[in-house]
Amino acid sequence: MAVNLSAPRAEQLLPVSGVELGTAAAHIRKRGRLDLLLIKLAEGARVAGVFTRNRFCAAPVLVARAHLSHARPIRALVVNTGNANAGTGEQGLSAARRTCSEAARVLGIAPEQVLPFSTGVIMEPLPVDRLAAGLPACVRDLKENNWLAAATAIMTTDTQPKAVSTRLELETGVVTITGMAKGAGMIHPDMATMLGFIATDANLPQALMEQALRYATDHSFNAITVDGDTSTNDALMLIASARSRADEIIDARSASYLRFRDALTDVAQRLAQAIVRDGEGATKFITVRVEQGASIEECRKVAFAIAHSPLVKTAFFASDPNLGRILAAIGYAGIHDLNVDHVDLYLDDVLVAQRGGRCAAYREADGQRVMQQTEITVRVVLNRGTEQATVWTCDLSHEYVTINAEYRT
Amino acid sequence: MAVNLSAPRAEQLLPVSGVELGTAAAHIRKRGRLDLLLIKLAEGARVAGVFTRNRFCAAPVLVARAHLSHARPIRALVVNTGNANAGTGEQGLSAARRTCSEAARVLGIAPEQVLPFSTGVIMEPLPVDRLAAGLPACVRDLKENNWLAAATAIMTTDTQPKAVSTRLELETGVVTITGMAKGAGMIHPDMATMLGFIATDANLPQALMEQALRYATDHSFNAITVDGDTSTNDALMLIASARSRADEIIDARSASYLRFRDALTDVAQRLAQAIVRDGEGATKFITVRVEQGASIEECRKVAFAIAHSPLVKTAFFASDPNLGRILAAIGYAGIHDLNVDHVDLYLDDVLVAQRGGRCAAYREADGQRVMQQTEITVRVVLNRGTEQATVWTCDLSHEYVTINAEYRT
Repeated sequence: MAVNLSAPRAEQLLPVSGVELGTAAAHIRKRGRLDLLLIKLAEGARVAGVFTRNRFCAAPVLVARAHLSHARPIRALVVNTGNANAGTGEQGLSAARRTCSEAARVLGIAPEQVLPFSTGVIMEPLPVDRLAAGLPACVRDLKENNWLAAATAIMTTDTQPKAVSTRLELETGVVTITGMAKGAGMIHPDMATMLGFIATDANLPQALMEQALRYATDHSFNAITVDGDTSTNDALMLIASARSRADEIIDARSASYLRFRDALTDVAQRLAQAIVRDGEGATKFITVRVEQGASIEECRKVAFAIAHSPLVKTAFFASDPNLGRILAAIGYAGIHDLNVDHVDLYLDDVLVAQRGGRCAAYREADGQRVMQQTEITVRVVLNRGTEQATVWTCDLSHEYVTINAEYRT
Repeated sequence: MAVNLSAPRAEQLLPVSGVELGTAAAHIRKRGRLDLLLIKLAEGARVAGVFTRNRFCAAPVLVARAHLSHARPIRALVVNTGNANAGTGEQGLSAARRTCSEAARVLGIAPEQVLPFSTGVIMEPLPVDRLAAGLPACVRDLKENNWLAAATAIMTTDTQPKAVSTRLELETGVVTITGMAKGAGMIHPDMATMLGFIATDANLPQALMEQALRYATDHSFNAITVDGDTSTNDALMLIASARSRADEIIDARSASYLRFRDALTDVAQRLAQAIVRDGEGATKFITVRVEQGASIEECRKVAFAIAHSPLVKTAFFASDPNLGRILAAIGYAGIHDLNVDHVDLYLDDVLVAQRGGRCAAYREADGQRVMQQTEITVRVVLNRGTEQATVWTCDLSHEYVTINAEYRT
C-alpha cells in the first residue's frame, strides 16, 4: 500500500568507503528472513547519534548511548529486527551487552566499540543466543556494496526497503552520503526515526557531525508522524569514515559545511518521507505546511494537531473534503491566544477557509478534486507572524487497523 | 456496536419540575428524523455552563456564552443536530442569533434569554430557515416527561440515546437530577462533552452551581476520550429549576452541597461513560487508572497517552495482549523525570510489568484472558507520589474508520 514508493535498485545505492555491511537470517522472530545486520567501520571512522526521548527507551538505546560516550572509537553496529528488547528490564540490558560482546569477539575489537540496535515487538525477551549464532554469517557477508540487503534486513512492517544516496562535489573532492531507515508504525519520532543509519566518507570533527545531524533530524525525522506513537527504540546514526579525498570540513560557517549539512538533510528528508509513504496502511501522502506563525513551535503544534487527528486522517482516506475537521484540529492545537478570524486554509491551490470561515468562492467540487489525489498539501496561514513549519503524514485506513490488530499473529 | 449500553426506558427518566422539552423533525440535514430540541425553563430557573476550549469554537458557543453573561435569566435552550454551525464565520453568528430570536418570538421572551447549541458537520451553513420552521412543532410537543425523545433528537453518530436520572433525599426534601448527553466521535472534551444537559429541581445560587458543575465535569466529561479530537461545539449545561421543596443549598461546606455535588458527578459520569460505550466503532470499554503519581496532572498525562495511542487501541480491538505498547505510551507521556524502573502495570488483576520490565510470573495466557473481556481496567502504578487519575476510553476498530470515512455520505 506504500504511496508512490518503490524499493531502490541496488546500483542506486553508492557504497561508502570504510563502511561494510553484512546480513543474516538469525531467526530472531520468524524463520527464513533477513533479520540481523552487522555494520563494520574502518579505523578512523566517527559516529554521532540521536535517540528517542521515550522514557521507556529500550535496553540497546541505553547501551548505545553509553558506548558512544566512551573514549574508544566505535567500530561496529549490530541491528536486529523482530524484537525491540524494550520493557525487558535488567535481563534486556544483559542481552544488549551480550550482543556487543559477541560482535566484539567475532571482529576482534572491544565490546565498548559496538553499538546495538533492536526493533520489533516490545516486552519480549531478546533471543540473544540465536542473534549471536547469526553473527558469523554476517561477518562472511560483509561488503561495502551491500546497502539494499542491509535496508531489507532491518524492516518490520515496512513493505519496502528505504535507502537513498547522494554525491556532493566539494572544492577539494567528492563526498558520498548513503543512508537507510526503517519504520512504518509507532512513528512520531521525538529525536529520530525508528532506526536510521546514514554513512558518509566525508571528514568532519565530532562536534560538526552532531550539529549537522541535529539540523537534519529536526527537518526530517522530527517532522513526520504516522500514528503519533513515539517509539521506545528510535535512533538515527551518522557515520563518517573520513575516506573521501575532500579536505576535512572544520568550519561551521564554511560553504563546504553548509553544502554538506543540506545534502545530509536532503538524504534524511527522503528517508523520513519514505517512512510516511510506507506508513502502515497509508494510501495518501500528506504535507501539512503552517505559515505566518509567531514561532516555529506553534507552527509545529498546529501541523501535528492536524497530522495526528484521526478524523482528519480518515477523511483523507475517504477522499472526503470534510475540511471542517482541519479547522477543529487547528482550534485545539494549544495556541491559547489564536484569533481564528485571521486563519486561512488551503488544500493545494484551493482556498477553502478565509478569515476563519468557509470561503465564499469555495466549491465542494474543488476540494473533492484535490482530495482524490494521492499527494496532497494542506496549507494553513495563521497570519500572526513570519515563522513556518512543515510536517509529513499519511491517512488512517482500514489497513492500519488490520496491521496493528494482527501485528503479532 | 455500543459496549454494554442500551437505550434508557422512558419511565426511568424522571421529569424535573419546571423543565419542559419538545422535539421536532426539522430536516436540518436528513429528512424524517428528530433533529431539533427546545427546552423551556420556568421562571426562577438558573443555568450554568462549561464550554469547549477549542479556539475554533462554534458560533452557537459564542452566542451562548454571551447570553449566559447577560443579566436577564435564561428561559430556553435550542439544540439542533446535523450541522455544527462551526467554521462558518459571520454568517454562522447571524444564524445562531436568528435561532435565538425565532425561539424568543414563539415563546414570548427576549432573544438574550435563549441559548443555542448545534452539533453535526463543521463548516457548512446552518439551514436556519428550516430550523425556525421547526420551532412551532417543538412548542406543541413541550412537556416535562419528554427526556427520551429529547436525548434521541440530539444524537449524531450515536447509536443509543444517553440519559440518566437520580433522586437524592436531602434533609428538607427530595431533589431530582436528570441529564442527557450526545457524542460518539470527535470526543476528547476539554471542558465538557459534545453536548450535555443536566437539569435539577434543586435550589442553588449561581456560584455553587458553577462550582458543582466544574467538579462534576473534571471527574466525568473531562476524563474521557474516544479519538483525541476536541470538538468545536462541546458544551455541558446545568439547569436548576429551584422547584424542589428542599431548602436552598447555600453553603459549599454543607453536607447537602456535598451530597448534591456527588450525585451530580455520578450523573455526569454515567453520561460520560455512556459516550465512551457508544464511541464510534467501540467494541471494548476501557478504564485507565494511574496511581501513585506526583500530581494529578501527570497521572492524567499518562492515562491520556495510553487512552489516545492508536497502537494500544488497536491491540484492545484485537484482544491481543501486546502490552509493551502500553509501556511505550507511558514512556512518551511527557513526564521527563519518570524513572521507568519504578513502574508497575496491571491488566485487571494481572501484574504484567514490574519495576519497568515484564513480570517474571506473567503468563501471556493471563493477559489474553483479560483482553477478551469487553470491560478492562488498565492500572499503572508510578510509585512516585500519592495522586491518581482515571480516564475512560474505547478501542479503535475498523468500524471507526468506516464511520468517519463515510460520515457525510
